[in-house]
Amino acid sequence: MEETPMEIGSNKMFGGYNKRYKHYSPTLACAMTFSVFFPPPSSSSSSSQKFPVLYWLSGLTCTDENFIIKSGAQRMAAAKGIALVAPDTSPRGLNVEGESESWDFGVGAGFYLNATTEKWKNWRMYDYIVKELPTLLSENFEQLDTTRASIFGHSMGGHGALTIYLKNLDKYKSVSAFAPIVNPINCPWGQKALSNYLGTNNSVWEEYDATCLISKFNNISAPILIDQGEDDNFLKNQLLPHKFEAACKDASVPLILRMQPGYDHSYYFIASFIDDHISHHANALV
Amino acid sequence: MEETPMEIGSNKMFGGYNKRYKHYSPTLACAMTFSVFFPPPSSSSSSSQKFPVLYWLSGLTCTDENFIIKSGAQRMAAAKGIALVAPDTSPRGLNVEGESESWDFGVGAGFYLNATTEKWKNWRMYDYIVKELPTLLSENFEQLDTTRASIFGHSMGGHGALTIYLKNLDKYKSVSAFAPIVNPINCPWGQKALSNYLGTNNSVWEEYDATCLISKFNNISAPILIDQGEDDNFLKNQLLPHKFEAACKDASVPLILRMQPGYDHSYYFIASFIDDHISHHANALV
Repeated sequence: MEETPMEIGSNKMFGGYNKRYKHYSPTLACAMTFSVFFPPPSSSSSSSQKFPVLYWLSGLTCTDENFIIKSGAQRMAAAKGIALVAPDTSPRGLNVEGESESWDFGVGAGFYLNATTEKWKNWRMYDYIVKELPTLLSENFEQLDTTRASIFGHSMGGHGALTIYLKNLDKYKSVSAFAPIVNPINCPWGQKALSNYLGTNNSVWEEYDATCLISKFNNISAPILIDQGEDDNFLKNQLLPHKFEAACKDASVPLILRMQPGYDHSYYFIASFIDDHISHHANALV
Repeated sequence: MEETPMEIGSNKMFGGYNKRYKHYSPTLACAMTFSVFFPPPSSSSSSSQKFPVLYWLSGLTCTDENFIIKSGAQRMAAAKGIALVAPDTSPRGLNVEGESESWDFGVGAGFYLNATTEKWKNWRMYDYIVKELPTLLSENFEQLDTTRASIFGHSMGGHGALTIYLKNLDKYKSVSAFAPIVNPINCPWGQKALSNYLGTNNSVWEEYDATCLISKFNNISAPILIDQGEDDNFLKNQLLPHKFEAACKDASVPLILRMQPGYDHSYYFIASFIDDHISHHANALV
């Protein structure tokens, strides 16, 4: 498997194309798959038009395909002229002992961090998303302008989007999330992942906790958008959006937290509000 | 299993709800599952408002869920105040010998007809869709007005929608299809299904062939809408839209056949044009 992305799928949608690619990732030491939605060229502009990039980080158990199949995001992305990039959620095929025993840890559950424990040393999704993937896109897809980039995600991917944004304000122009894990040091999913990937020194964990990170910032002027379903089964035990809301208030960071009555944790919820999120990012990107 | 539908799933979407139901079908002599999208109540009308019904018939291998998960139809259905009803594609669990040996015949491939051969006598999807299901909906869901109904579908389901519409002009106000099988007596999928389900008397087959049926009508004033991807792998061997186009012309039946360059047979194609189809039906229903 080469590092250069090989096209493994192509479907026209809303005038653009969903394409899937496979490549060898040196960061993760395994083959990885990602999807890109390329919007249609604007009729009013030249063929050299480049599209800004909006990264989508998926939640536990997902691959690069869930968002592409279920979110309906391509309609508005096509209209706004934004490319969508959906990576996978962890290394795969490394055969680390126990990597597939839980749905909330290991394969499909990379938590978008760089693991430091010896056993999980290849779980470096943070570097894959922040460093390897943008370089790969920039070098291989001339129609993408990776200098104009934003990031969003769902659940574990909402955690990834928020933490990556806060640690790289120079690289991403806006952030949003659906039902994100915002305070992983204080929830069971986060504690399981952080202790295994980072070891038992809790102070290190805070580097990957959006609620801890936000307290370091009082210079964020662009509002953070979060939608959260009130009937989400994970709301009270895992997601804890009000912890993040309080931290944003303390740090004077503008947050639009929309509690959505009746909505659950599924892609039906995501699809219902995806247009608002694409528009939120279009304001920063286009 | 009772004949009264039992709710087995509920997810809020675009202000309405996707709900799944299971019930015993006397027509098919097995348990069946179907999905309904109920749009949100209009804020301007009273709570006694009833929604017209738009039936979606799926293609080979599908269940009631593919359309609900992948089409994105709920956004426009919610806006127009139309309920979407997505049934399954065949009886299941009857354990007829060979029923699961092919992906294009048997389970998942009911072809929306009433079988006459002894072996497949329970394959009566035509009666299930035209008779049992509307009665079931009318008796169990007071928010649905099944007297205002239209029908559409994809591939095998496009065949189902067109034939059922033409045989029941009093029951359905409009029809449309994505990449429909329009001339099954002249394509391999159709010949395999029709010979097994109906026996070898080809004249009976014509009762379930849209291109044959259309020649009997010259009093259809509402246009039939069909979208067809030009890069659909099944276009030339199975779907044959130009046969139907010629028959419509001969019968002076208004047909809007839109050949869509670059699109394939997938739900990405369907999602790209679903809004136009919902609007087409809304003109007849709302």
